[in-house]
Amino acid sequence: EGSGAGTFPLADISVRKVLRESARDKTIFLHGQVNSASGDGTDAVVILEKTPFQEENIAELLKKHTKLQLQMSNDIYSTYHLYLPPELNEIKTTVVYPATEKHLQKYLRQELCLIQETGEDYKKITLPFIESQSFSIQWVYNILEKKAEADRIIYENPDPAHGFVLIPDLKWNQKQVDDLYLIAICHCRGIKSLRDLTAEHLPLLRNISREGKEAIVKRFGIGGAQLRVYLHYQPSYFHLHVHFTALGYDAPGCTVERAHLLSDVIDHLERDSQYYQKCTLTFALRADEPLLKKFQEAGRV
Amino acid sequence: EGSGAGTFPLADISVRKVLRESARDKTIFLHGQVNSASGDGTDAVVILEKTPFQEENIAELLKKHTKLQLQMSNDIYSTYHLYLPPELNEIKTTVVYPATEKHLQKYLRQELCLIQETGEDYKKITLPFIESQSFSIQWVYNILEKKAEADRIIYENPDPAHGFVLIPDLKWNQKQVDDLYLIAICHCRGIKSLRDLTAEHLPLLRNISREGKEAIVKRFGIGGAQLRVYLHYQPSYFHLHVHFTALGYDAPGCTVERAHLLSDVIDHLERDSQYYQKCTLTFALRADEPLLKKFQEAGRV
Repeated sequence: EGSGAGTFPLADISVRKVLRESARDKTIFLHGQVNSASGDGTDAVVILEKTPFQEENIAELLKKHTKLQLQMSNDIYSTYHLYLPPELNEIKTTVVYPATEKHLQKYLRQELCLIQETGEDYKKITLPFIESQSFSIQWVYNILEKKAEADRIIYENPDPAHGFVLIPDLKWNQKQVDDLYLIAICHCRGIKSLRDLTAEHLPLLRNISREGKEAIVKRFGIGGAQLRVYLHYQPSYFHLHVHFTALGYDAPGCTVERAHLLSDVIDHLERDSQYYQKCTLTFALRADEPLLKKFQEAGRV
Repeated sequence: EGSGAGTFPLADISVRKVLRESARDKTIFLHGQVNSASGDGTDAVVILEKTPFQEENIAELLKKHTKLQLQMSNDIYSTYHLYLPPELNEIKTTVVYPATEKHLQKYLRQELCLIQETGEDYKKITLPFIESQSFSIQWVYNILEKKAEADRIIYENPDPAHGFVLIPDLKWNQKQVDDLYLIAICHCRGIKSLRDLTAEHLPLLRNISREGKEAIVKRFGIGGAQLRVYLHYQPSYFHLHVHFTALGYDAPGCTVERAHLLSDVIDHLERDSQYYQKCTLTFALRADEPLLKKFQEAGRV
């Protein structure tokens, strides 16, 4: 019953709350309490995730199913409930135990709030907020100076003003190109985000677009027409960087309220050097993000 | 063994090819051949999909697991392989049988190709293509004329030029607001897409934005700051419509290469009435879409 030594007493958990779930990803995040002799009401986070199908197991899985129950049939189409032996249908389980209030908060689904940030809002609310925070970007400088991850660099243009380093994103394991994900980090320091870009950055942006795609087709065989190339706003760190992801991959953060295609950015700057200082940018903030509070205090939400 | 009368002989299938799979969605699409006495090599498409966790079954699932096998342990964090009785871990199975070559093609993963459509490209390639096709949008007119789905209408502004109908998208079952999805369809006919919009449509677009959000908060309790409001380009049908989805829901088609925020569209038209006749629009086409062939013939891909 899964209660051997060193094993978590899963059967003794009482579920207090569903923290978060995703019907698309087939995951659920639970706040549980351990009520066994050893646990005595201690909090735990339990994350359950159905696992992807593995091509090499499919034949066995079809052969060894325990039941196939017809649900609906119409002409050549039919649907079934299929039941498998447990060992062919495992569930990945992650446990945080004991869990603190902070862990529970971290996994709790946060409400999102859409912000429409005008150029004025940026100057009055967002910029002072960014400057008041001491976000460390030492890890970015370490990459640019080859003090870290130097062996991971895929391509570099060393020009200090118009150059950049291209490196695989840590989310990508590089084992398959289906979820290809690389980042171009510019050498130039002080460009915090999209909001700082003007026509003077066009040579840098064009280099990233052209040379980034060339390097990716050379190394990974994926051409420019199969790539989504974009910036985030808000970015997760304030040193200009550009995302390259496989077009067929729904990467996190490629939705319309966060991603800005590099080709659109170049177009806008060609038309109007001050475009990104003036335009309204839309993005979502989680309810627990301090920047949201700043927008609320300013009466902008 | 699931081989009762009227049941598909799943155990007798030999897998010819994996047509498509998604590690994120936990789905796999198979091309199989039925080798039983009745089947004799006939093609079938078999779609397997792991099912979402259901909150009401979680307690039972934790209690009745057959095995919990430790994978990794580090401080308060640990991961496990969890095994469940078959009936608590079903797989949704869809079968197309017998399947034709056309079915196999339909489910086969298609390469995507990114198109950068200039205003000229639209006039010379896309518009003639749209006009040459006889896409029927009778079903849209049926909704607008209350000949179909009249009881599903959430809100209507009946103005023939600046009015619209708001209706739940068929993909949304209306049982939970997590994946809320509604469509605003304008009464005015002949606006094919984003490309046809000029400043004269601003009153219509502002009505859709304001009244659509008001109707949704009134009926479903979801405010405008929790909604993603956008148009598709290319749209799936050529009568202007606007998508309203829950901000926390990664709806299909809300990625940056397909979705255009209504607020951005209004901003662009306020600045420049001809914006959408001149700008370059980026979108992905599947390798089997006829429009891609037109771009290839024109030497634009």
